[in-house]
Amino acid sequence: MRNLKDLTYGIVGLGIMGGSIAKAIRQNILCRSDASGKILACNRSTACLIQARADGVVDETFTTERVQEMLPKCDLLYVCLYPHATLDFLKENKQFFKSGAIVTDISGVKGIFEKELPSILRDDVDFIIGHPMAGGEKEGYVNSKAEFFINHNYILCEQSFNKKENLDLMRDFIAEIGFSRITETSCDTHDYKIGFTSQLCHVIASALVESAQDPEITAFGGGSFEDLTRIAMINAPLWTELFISNKEKLVEHIENFEKQMDIFKRAIRDKDSETLKAILEDTREKRLQMGSIRTVRK
Amino acid sequence: MRNLKDLTYGIVGLGIMGGSIAKAIRQNILCRSDASGKILACNRSTACLIQARADGVVDETFTTERVQEMLPKCDLLYVCLYPHATLDFLKENKQFFKSGAIVTDISGVKGIFEKELPSILRDDVDFIIGHPMAGGEKEGYVNSKAEFFINHNYILCEQSFNKKENLDLMRDFIAEIGFSRITETSCDTHDYKIGFTSQLCHVIASALVESAQDPEITAFGGGSFEDLTRIAMINAPLWTELFISNKEKLVEHIENFEKQMDIFKRAIRDKDSETLKAILEDTREKRLQMGSIRTVRK
Repeated sequence: MRNLKDLTYGIVGLGIMGGSIAKAIRQNILCRSDASGKILACNRSTACLIQARADGVVDETFTTERVQEMLPKCDLLYVCLYPHATLDFLKENKQFFKSGAIVTDISGVKGIFEKELPSILRDDVDFIIGHPMAGGEKEGYVNSKAEFFINHNYILCEQSFNKKENLDLMRDFIAEIGFSRITETSCDTHDYKIGFTSQLCHVIASALVESAQDPEITAFGGGSFEDLTRIAMINAPLWTELFISNKEKLVEHIENFEKQMDIFKRAIRDKDSETLKAILEDTREKRLQMGSIRTVRK
Repeated sequence: MRNLKDLTYGIVGLGIMGGSIAKAIRQNILCRSDASGKILACNRSTACLIQARADGVVDETFTTERVQEMLPKCDLLYVCLYPHATLDFLKENKQFFKSGAIVTDISGVKGIFEKELPSILRDDVDFIIGHPMAGGEKEGYVNSKAEFFINHNYILCEQSFNKKENLDLMRDFIAEIGFSRITETSCDTHDYKIGFTSQLCHVIASALVESAQDPEITAFGGGSFEDLTRIAMINAPLWTELFISNKEKLVEHIENFEKQMDIFKRAIRDKDSETLKAILEDTREKRLQMGSIRTVRK
């Protein structure tokens, strides 16, 4: 079985995710004195490549035009691009992948991968569908860090064509780069649940900011508004793509949420204290049960 | 002019707010070697009174039945009860207040105070309407701390009957116990803005928890859902009272928010990338402008 410390890793797209993956590999896997592994990286703009070499994070870098020289060397290839750009990249470059390679991505929608992958991939390359659940309002290699994934979830969507030894290697790798939990599920369930925990939350945060009539509103804030809207500092093109790629499920979640808002609105308007108190007690109980991966994993 | 270090402070209701105020007074104001001030506290249950005396936080304690012995001694009286309980307390006990005392409260709705105070208060007692904007899902004296108010806002709603020297003393006091900013406004503006930054946010967080179909949903969380729903671990009776006391303004905010949700929903359903991208870019810009008191005050 292949050993993580001796693999050649390839990162396509050295932004906050790709950069953090590279740094975590360097710090947690290739730190051992007997490690013979390497990290290769490719990116459209070259500033981050120069920086990552200077930081000692990556061993070799490639511009987009030269990616075909990088791909045949990579045992584990991470495509860290937007969802449709990832699919396009796979289509355009599949003939250059190393035989036996594991290829994976970071996209926040998975249904389109399940649907398109069979017609894209070669039999001797194993694509593992996963989603590292980490992010933030900051972007770019400059904001990446090796500790980015600590206390975060990784979701894996095993496919019938995946090789068991590759999935095992991938699970080891995910734990090594810092993730606290791996949730295994189908692409359909992934998109349904992520439509709720991530996309719906981003829509709500954005709608809340848009409904503010006053940019000075934080003078009246006690922290709640800031907490609810931090994620509204959103990467517009990426989230537009995520929302639209998952539109059926997301619209269903929005409508469920709207129904709940309406129940609250009616109880408040009708001064229905008993109903309000009962719902809020239920809410508190439900929320406490849900916990948080940050506290659960301590 | 009276000096903060020599005042006798009275706290009615020694929960997380009353307890934190007492601890902050002890640590920041009565710490000086020449301080002659004292802290007296009254609470319905006695466990926290015993604890606060053992902690060296308060000098004398009183059960609710004996509050009439405490009130005539207090130069600055903090009523830290729920909004309507505060009004009831003022009505029932006004004859025991010290002549010249400043009385204030912590309630999250202020319109009802502006309306009812003139018929309640004596001419020789100055009631200052304010709102310390701090809180959390934890309750009780056991969770109180002297540092609770650091980096938080205090809202003051000056009334025509307030004495200038009392307002000045109150502003000094607020800064001494740790608040970073004082926002001065009318009760009406307070209730409108707080209806947005605080109450609307609590309704949204609660509705989001209620719309979750699965208590295991945090296995799919990347932090957004947790951030948006932390405040849903709500004190049901208190927030029911706050929501209903401010119902006209809160319902208006809910409806504005619902309109924005609807704009997002339609753009997603219609796969209208251009509109979505434009709104999300506007959202990001607006949210960045709003900043956060936590970063502004560094």
